[in-house]
Amino acid sequence: MSACTVDIVSTAPAALDPLPVLGHDVRVPLATGEEVTYAALDYAASAPALQRVWDDVAAYAPYYGSVHRGAGYLSRLSTELFENSRAEVASFLGCRADDQVLFTRSTTDSLNLLASALPHGCEVFVYETEHHAALLPWGSHGHRVRVLDAPASPALAVELLERALAARDPYGPALVCVTGASNVTGELWPVRELAAAAHAHGARIVLDAAQLAPHHPVDISALDVDWVALSGHKLYAPFGAGVLAGRPDWLREAEPYLAGGGASRHVVRGADGGVAVEWHTTEARHEAGSPNVIGAYAIAAACRALRDAGFDRLVERERQLVRRVREGLAAVPGVRVLSLFGADAPRVGVLSFVVDGWDSSRLAAALSAEYGIGVRDGLFCAHPFVRRLAGEAGEAGDGARGPRNAVRVSFGAGTPDEHVERFLRAVGELVARGDRP
Amino acid sequence: MSACTVDIVSTAPAALDPLPVLGHDVRVPLATGEEVTYAALDYAASAPALQRVWDDVAAYAPYYGSVHRGAGYLSRLSTELFENSRAEVASFLGCRADDQVLFTRSTTDSLNLLASALPHGCEVFVYETEHHAALLPWGSHGHRVRVLDAPASPALAVELLERALAARDPYGPALVCVTGASNVTGELWPVRELAAAAHAHGARIVLDAAQLAPHHPVDISALDVDWVALSGHKLYAPFGAGVLAGRPDWLREAEPYLAGGGASRHVVRGADGGVAVEWHTTEARHEAGSPNVIGAYAIAAACRALRDAGFDRLVERERQLVRRVREGLAAVPGVRVLSLFGADAPRVGVLSFVVDGWDSSRLAAALSAEYGIGVRDGLFCAHPFVRRLAGEAGEAGDGARGPRNAVRVSFGAGTPDEHVERFLRAVGELVARGDRP
Repeated sequence: MSACTVDIVSTAPAALDPLPVLGHDVRVPLATGEEVTYAALDYAASAPALQRVWDDVAAYAPYYGSVHRGAGYLSRLSTELFENSRAEVASFLGCRADDQVLFTRSTTDSLNLLASALPHGCEVFVYETEHHAALLPWGSHGHRVRVLDAPASPALAVELLERALAARDPYGPALVCVTGASNVTGELWPVRELAAAAHAHGARIVLDAAQLAPHHPVDISALDVDWVALSGHKLYAPFGAGVLAGRPDWLREAEPYLAGGGASRHVVRGADGGVAVEWHTTEARHEAGSPNVIGAYAIAAACRALRDAGFDRLVERERQLVRRVREGLAAVPGVRVLSLFGADAPRVGVLSFVVDGWDSSRLAAALSAEYGIGVRDGLFCAHPFVRRLAGEAGEAGDGARGPRNAVRVSFGAGTPDEHVERFLRAVGELVARGDRP
Repeated sequence: MSACTVDIVSTAPAALDPLPVLGHDVRVPLATGEEVTYAALDYAASAPALQRVWDDVAAYAPYYGSVHRGAGYLSRLSTELFENSRAEVASFLGCRADDQVLFTRSTTDSLNLLASALPHGCEVFVYETEHHAALLPWGSHGHRVRVLDAPASPALAVELLERALAARDPYGPALVCVTGASNVTGELWPVRELAAAAHAHGARIVLDAAQLAPHHPVDISALDVDWVALSGHKLYAPFGAGVLAGRPDWLREAEPYLAGGGASRHVVRGADGGVAVEWHTTEARHEAGSPNVIGAYAIAAACRALRDAGFDRLVERERQLVRRVREGLAAVPGVRVLSLFGADAPRVGVLSFVVDGWDSSRLAAALSAEYGIGVRDGLFCAHPFVRRLAGEAGEAGDGARGPRNAVRVSFGAGTPDEHVERFLRAVGELVARGDRP
């Protein structure tokens, strides 16, 4: 997967610092009453804001004005800032000249928007391993959905898709939806190869980059995907905005996602007493309502910050952290790191695991109460996948029915080494002590 | 309309200060090269953030964490803050005990959500005077929409609605959608009376409070409306969030607005190879994706700030500003303030006008370039209404075809007297000078 190829040749640990983030010095209470600095290791759920993102938002906030809607100086400035943010994101994502960048509220929103814009009769192909945001929108819009089984390797993922696409009606429209990096295992998917397979069979492909974009450059042209969806709040810009970037044609021909001002170009009472609407055909078509300028600007600021920091350096640093976490967890007896593609498969800073004899929720609670560490426990909005990897609770002897919870640790550009070291020490100590239901 | 009755008895101008807002001291360039402080008179499009809203957001930002999704201290804190924000908004809006407060992205989004949740066969009644966000969503969701003509008075509005409702199928569901204050004229609509009429005919009613809530307390119980929709960015909290508050039943029974994580409670592969989903029945059902915590908290902060400042005092202060603008504009020859209910009808700080011999866009541009004043020109996302009030451009001799643009001046809790005085002086001087196409 070419997006995963980086130009770092050094293998010796480089002295790289994490990027400054908000909350790096927040102190939280432990069960003992002591206070420690918070170790935010739940980036996969939502990442802290980069300090630079916050600084850019704070610098802009006094200049806030209505976008596309006013004649005043601040309105014009805000409109320019909003449209420049679109251009920044397009550049960050390596968009093609005619791609559209739509500002949505989140990846969930972006994929629901795309689902609402699919042509009539479109078949959708999606792996059962996807996050619910990528798994569920298609059926809700009445499309025929083909759920593909979890493949045991990237090569099998491609093979499975090719087989499924070969069996489809070759004359109808089709869409493949795949994640760039799993929100459960952090494992990288063979996006470029899947895109080639999709296109070879006349299908299109959307990349769910929610978990990839914060950790790795995403180049829509190099990957040759048709759309990319991402969330600001996972990309160090938690101000309520997300992105759908890609091909304009299906979007232009679809009914507007929301009906309202901004999307409507011309509205008249019709002869029948109703209203007749002419909709915009540009990005505005799917952006009804006053845009979230601050949210869009925050995403653009994050793109700038990651680029300026040298994204490849961040990738390399994160790779070292991943290696350290893997080695550290491997040394703890009874810990099983969840993996679809095998223990050594490339992954971003997202790892889920279960521990023999430990209830995952209690382990996560103990990490918080005794060490000031924030992780997530649960099924990570990917129930079928976690069920497959972690098994059913009954099998694991945890008492409860249903799929077994896991613990997820995740980190990124703002994570200092100390958080990872503290986490590994904590897991070692807690496992040695044993669960106390 | 009881929501418009305030307990201020003093009629003498009270010495009330505007609330501190971001950008109050921003300086902008004029065409001459001079700089002046910006006069933001486009609150109806989007209002500046209250300083207190910004301060609250800034205080929270380092503690940002994933909501409903993590075991760490900041996740739990953020979840509590998010749910407390819901409660704050419910209290601010006088919600009934079983009302739901959903965080959306804007009024447009709130009304589209409600449109997606209407029961099968629901008829929708809406005046042609509504903002496109309130006029257009219903047809997009396939409902039968009855567009009511613009009434010449609040009493006629009620009469018109009653007549329309009397003619409907009394056994089917129906919804009335009405604004609390027009985004074009600022005029107050008889919400309580319309609610009574709706309920008398077995219909429900949603209040578009986008333009009312920033200017006037809105009490869902006292008005006896079924839902209220509003936007944070007009309520001095421009962080990408909005609200839909009201009855839970239709919402609970509707398909989830977005499909994804958070909304889905249980997902399994079905026997047919597809996925089967059990959705939440609480607020989460329609809030898929990671919530915009900062946006929601900003709205709650605005509610607190308005309440603490004494909203009635703000209403009285704004009333004085409205009186001053009306009198000032009345003194300028050739200015016609747009009004549906008559020149003396109660209104919030939103006034649109046209000037004989002036193109509205050039007037708005001159206010910006020569006086540093930000207003809006256009059709205000209410084409049928502005067309009715302002007439066609051809009629006014402006050359261009189509509806005639107007200029809208709007203000609120952060507006100092000086902005209004500068605006009146500017209009007087520009009109005396004449348009120079």
